[in-house]
Amino acid sequence: LNNLTIALDAMGGDYGPSITVPASLQALLCFPSLSISIFGDEKVIRQYIPANTPHLNRLNIQHCTQIVTMNDRPLTAVRSRRDSSMRKAIDMVQQGKAGACVSAGNTGVLMAMAKLVLKTLPGIDRPALISTLPTLLDKPVYMLDLGANVSCDSDTLLQFAVMGSVVAQKVDKIACPKISLLNVGEEAIKGNDVVKQTAELLRETKQLNYVGFIEGHQIFDGHTDVIVCDGFVGNISLKTTEGVANLLFAHLQQAAKSSLLMRFLSFISTPFLKKALCKVKPDQYNGASLLGLRGIVIKSHGNADQHAFFNAIKQAIIEVEQQVPDRIQDSLESILLEKTC
Amino acid sequence: LNNLTIALDAMGGDYGPSITVPASLQALLCFPSLSISIFGDEKVIRQYIPANTPHLNRLNIQHCTQIVTMNDRPLTAVRSRRDSSMRKAIDMVQQGKAGACVSAGNTGVLMAMAKLVLKTLPGIDRPALISTLPTLLDKPVYMLDLGANVSCDSDTLLQFAVMGSVVAQKVDKIACPKISLLNVGEEAIKGNDVVKQTAELLRETKQLNYVGFIEGHQIFDGHTDVIVCDGFVGNISLKTTEGVANLLFAHLQQAAKSSLLMRFLSFISTPFLKKALCKVKPDQYNGASLLGLRGIVIKSHGNADQHAFFNAIKQAIIEVEQQVPDRIQDSLESILLEKTC
Repeated sequence: LNNLTIALDAMGGDYGPSITVPASLQALLCFPSLSISIFGDEKVIRQYIPANTPHLNRLNIQHCTQIVTMNDRPLTAVRSRRDSSMRKAIDMVQQGKAGACVSAGNTGVLMAMAKLVLKTLPGIDRPALISTLPTLLDKPVYMLDLGANVSCDSDTLLQFAVMGSVVAQKVDKIACPKISLLNVGEEAIKGNDVVKQTAELLRETKQLNYVGFIEGHQIFDGHTDVIVCDGFVGNISLKTTEGVANLLFAHLQQAAKSSLLMRFLSFISTPFLKKALCKVKPDQYNGASLLGLRGIVIKSHGNADQHAFFNAIKQAIIEVEQQVPDRIQDSLESILLEKTC
Repeated sequence: LNNLTIALDAMGGDYGPSITVPASLQALLCFPSLSISIFGDEKVIRQYIPANTPHLNRLNIQHCTQIVTMNDRPLTAVRSRRDSSMRKAIDMVQQGKAGACVSAGNTGVLMAMAKLVLKTLPGIDRPALISTLPTLLDKPVYMLDLGANVSCDSDTLLQFAVMGSVVAQKVDKIACPKISLLNVGEEAIKGNDVVKQTAELLRETKQLNYVGFIEGHQIFDGHTDVIVCDGFVGNISLKTTEGVANLLFAHLQQAAKSSLLMRFLSFISTPFLKKALCKVKPDQYNGASLLGLRGIVIKSHGNADQHAFFNAIKQAIIEVEQQVPDRIQDSLESILLEKTC
């Protein structure tokens, strides 16, 4: 790690500074060359910094007078929240003073502000939220869009496919990443009009290794490298994953309480269960990247806890090291411009 | 159970008669007053009936010359597959000779054929696939549409909400079922245009207890009674559930193999795990009902195994006992007609 600075929106997410500040302190402890500029209500932020906390010389508190709320509309907030913690964190990336910014706030506003301030890469109209998910084959799969764009036409989905492919190529060194479209069936006749049109565009784009439709139960089977969908479907699918995991943990806890024998069995099987379940816990892959911008923006889950928000900061550090926007820019341009010529 | 006959499409699904026939024989064994008319290629069906199988007097094999494939288009298949196993099974319900039909075949064709042959209930334009999902509160939640309609406008989603509400009221005796719309956020400004318009319609429909948006991770929390979404999103969300469950089972198996200690712990914790996990296995709630028709049609998952297809037959028996279409007809009419007056 070289010296690196991350800009944090302290006020975003369901729990605000009560989780963003402890997560920041944890990150400073783990990464000795990390500096954090944390934006928000200074008084509130300071409440969550215990006395005698080490490494405070690497924490830079930047007071802001405004907060982006979950009810803010993107187009209004872009104009009216110029002194918000979210906007200021993005501004710092634009000014080149931070390598990346992290926010757990309103996704729509984050997307609109980031697009306005940082601008999109050549050939890209709208950034998309991308993340990796675990699979049966012990290699992750990229999925986008996870919620930045609630309605997409086929041209936008094509751009997402190109971005996903280039990231898998440049970051994961996969020569010809397999691209799949999320749909309600594998057959060509299945799906709505947008999905069918996108499939046609993908087949025509010879630089992409489009392998066809994929269904919801195949997301985790590891047979593809990039899964493309609109942000509405992607968001609901990802959050369904979280819901199932929560349901399962609850059932395990309930079963553990049902009798003395079960209590004993649950106690004795804890290490076994932990090993198996930790791979599918959503916290493990929290922190989606807003891909397609001239800068790195990480969106943490709105109800992220400290551990999850810490993982989002870690994700930001990894992306700064990998310099994703710079590395994908040329390839994006060549595929998308060749396509439109 | 009174005497009841179920019409089965033997040829549907990924495995056809190899699973539909054994599941039928299992059902005949479990339900002494059940008769099954099974439609399909008689020669193939007979291959899966072992010699000396009991209760064959209650299995009626009906030979058909055609099969609906997964590549058939709904509008074409409705005309060209009149001697298919799927069509003949639906016909039998229309003729009043079977109480319900069950198919694991092409959802789009099943929906189109059922709509044409059985007709929709008054006030309903399009049937929807409905099923219950398990929740944290030990009471199920209804979700529709799970894949019959890949694109829906707000009027259609309103009809789905009314159907879901009436089923929860009539079948589960819930006085004022809580209705939620699946969306990417809980705030009013979130979502695409169709979801926002539907929310407005639902708020205006005073006979419905509309409680707002719900996110993917809240599907299983048990705080609502009916979740409404279009069939594209519903199908992908439901199948994501299946994917996560499969991923989890695979991780458990893998962890169990990793060392002698793990092998021992996995062995000893098997009863504990089984108790906890069986509630979230998708097989347990296989069999979605095509709601809104003047007759009972159960859609089994395309890749259902014998156990899952058996559950779909069981679901058909339950619905015949409950006479869902008859019981919801009056309420549907009164809400939807009052609404449009």
